[in-house]
Order: sequence, then C-alpha cells, then structure tokens
Amino acid sequence: MRVLGVDPGLTRCGVGVVDGIAGRPLTMVGVGVVRTPPDADLGDRLVAIEQGIEAWLDEHRPERVAVERVFSQHNVRTVMGTAQASAVAMLCASRRGIPVVLHTPSEVKAAITGSGRADKDQVGAMVTRLLRLAAPPKPADAADALALAICHIWRSPAQNRLQEAVARHRAAPSAQPPKGRTA
Amino acid sequence: MRVLGVDPGLTRCGVGVVDGIAGRPLTMVGVGVVRTPPDADLGDRLVAIEQGIEAWLDEHRPERVAVERVFSQHNVRTVMGTAQASAVAMLCASRRGIPVVLHTPSEVKAAITGSGRADKDQVGAMVTRLLRLAAPPKPADAADALALAICHIWRSPAQNRLQEAVARHRAAPSAQPPKGRTA
Repeated sequence: MRVLGVDPGLTRCGVGVVDGIAGRPLTMVGVGVVRTPPDADLGDRLVAIEQGIEAWLDEHRPERVAVERVFSQHNVRTVMGTAQASAVAMLCASRRGIPVVLHTPSEVKAAITGSGRADKDQVGAMVTRLLRLAAPPKPADAADALALAICHIWRSPAQNRLQEAVARHRAAPSAQPPKGRTA
Repeated sequence: MRVLGVDPGLTRCGVGVVDGIAGRPLTMVGVGVVRTPPDADLGDRLVAIEQGIEAWLDEHRPERVAVERVFSQHNVRTVMGTAQASAVAMLCASRRGIPVVLHTPSEVKAAITGSGRADKDQVGAMVTRLLRLAAPPKPADAADALALAICHIWRSPAQNRLQEAVARHRAAPSAQPPKGRTA
C-alpha cells in the first residue's frame, strides 16, 4: 500500500509518501514541504497548496491519503489555516477517488512511538529508524507527514490483507488459490 | 459590480449573487444553497461543494467573491466544517483570478441593518427590502449569502467608483472625459 501523509498548514504543509504493509519493512518514496508565503492573499495560498498537492499525487499515485485531523484547541488563527489547508488536501484526493483517512496527532504518536504524548524529537527519531533514513527529515512537518503515512499503514491491517491477496492474485492469476497469511 | 456572496457550511452553503453599485438600487441575480449529505465522507462533501460553487461561478461570472470570515468561538466541529467549506469557496474563486474578500458576521449585520448585533430575522428583512423581493430568501444561509454580497458592494466605494468610470469609458470611448461623481 502506498500512502501520502499530509501534515496540513498554510505556511508549511508537510508531505511524505511511504510504501509498505503492516509487519514488513517500510520504504520512504518521497518527502517534502509545500510552502506558501505568509504575506500572500489567503485564496492564492490555497491555490498554491492545491498545486503542490496535485504535483505530489501526480508523481507518486498514492492509494490512500492520510491527513492529520485538526482540532480547534490551539491558537485560533493557526487552527483556521490548518483546517483550510487540510480541506484542500482532502479535496484534491477525493476528486481523484483516492480514499482519505484522518488520524489525530495522538493516534499518530501512539502508533509510531508507543506514546500518544511523544514529542517532536521522539517522532522524528522513530520515523528515521522505521524508514532507515540517515537523519531525521527536516522540518518537523515533513517528519510528521511520514509519521501519518506510517500510522495509516499500521492501523489498516484489514486493508493490507486485502491488498496482499489482490497482489498475490494479480501476480499469479492462474495459480493455485492464495494461501492463508502465515505471519 | 457583480458579487457572489458565500455563507460557508458543509451541510448548507448559502450562495447569492447581487449586481449593483453603492448608492444605487441593487439587483438580485440569483440565490440558492449548495447542500451536502451530513453522513457522506468529508472529502466527498468538499468535492460536492467545489462542484456547486463552480456551477455558480460558471453561470453568473461574478467580479468579486465575498466569503464570511470564520471564527473558532463556536462549536468546534461546526467551525472546522465551516473553515473547510470556506477554503473550497476561496480556492474556486482564486483559481479563476476572481478577488476574494472576507467579511465578519458583525460587519455584514452592521452594513445591512445598522447594528452588528442584528438577529437573523432582521438581516432577512433588510435583504428582502434592499433587493425588493416578495419574501425573505430561505433558508437563512441563502439570505446571509445575499447580505454578504450587499455588504461587499457597499463597503467598496473606491472599487465601485473605478468600475463606474471604466463602464462610462467603455460605453462612450470617444466621448468627453468622464465627469466627477455628483452623488
């Protein structure tokens, strides 16, 4: 399963693509940040985010898009921008028929580090280890986007099993019936 | 000046188009509501709102889009949906190069009724009077969208004067220089 993780934001929108199946080593396909100038018109910033996300979808063709679920506990202005950037990411994916899944920050932290209260450094360290990278991706938004993608792969065992079965079937359409999962 | 007002919402997104210039009688060009089913997938709802807004832009070709500025004082879940719907409306307009303006609910109420604390009925009554309608537009989201468009026309005298001058120039390109505004 190939997942594009999106850590939404107007100034920095983290994006990361991970290939993998729960229980197997994961592969980072790409990571980056879509940036828009803070002094630009809000509508123009949303258009720039749309173009950025579209470019990532075009290049990497993910099967799922995992977006951070936004809460309004934090700074009002930031939260509005985050909600708006996340809307653009969801819109781009849904328009193409790519399923969108939302994960809360604590779900992501718990999935990656074992603790829903882990800090940025801990998340960055685990992303680095799980994807076998030389160094933690910078900025933190990029690492968070990869963490979202990993979280989604690990939290979707049913989807993974289905995809595995489909992959086996496609690889050997005329072979014997697929064997049971042995792991 | 033709303005599309958008009262953003996921379940009901009010839209209203008004033609006019400050200080002259206004004309309602169209009013309606873009609806999405509350039980649908969030991404699909955003796609439906995009299609609805695009249809209104295609049909009425507004020169400005006025969107209600969202605050996070209210119910968390509602505010997130409102912010996301407003992002889609802004994106659709900006993508076409149509300037987007944001007005707060109190700015709109003050412009239309004289009081920033006016209730829904008062706004509906004034929209009905100003646009010379037979009855207040229903639901309230539709009336609010028209109120937003009127507010923008009235709050943009500089833009209006410029547009008037351009209109005069286009109507009589070889005539004498435009006269000063006499109102």
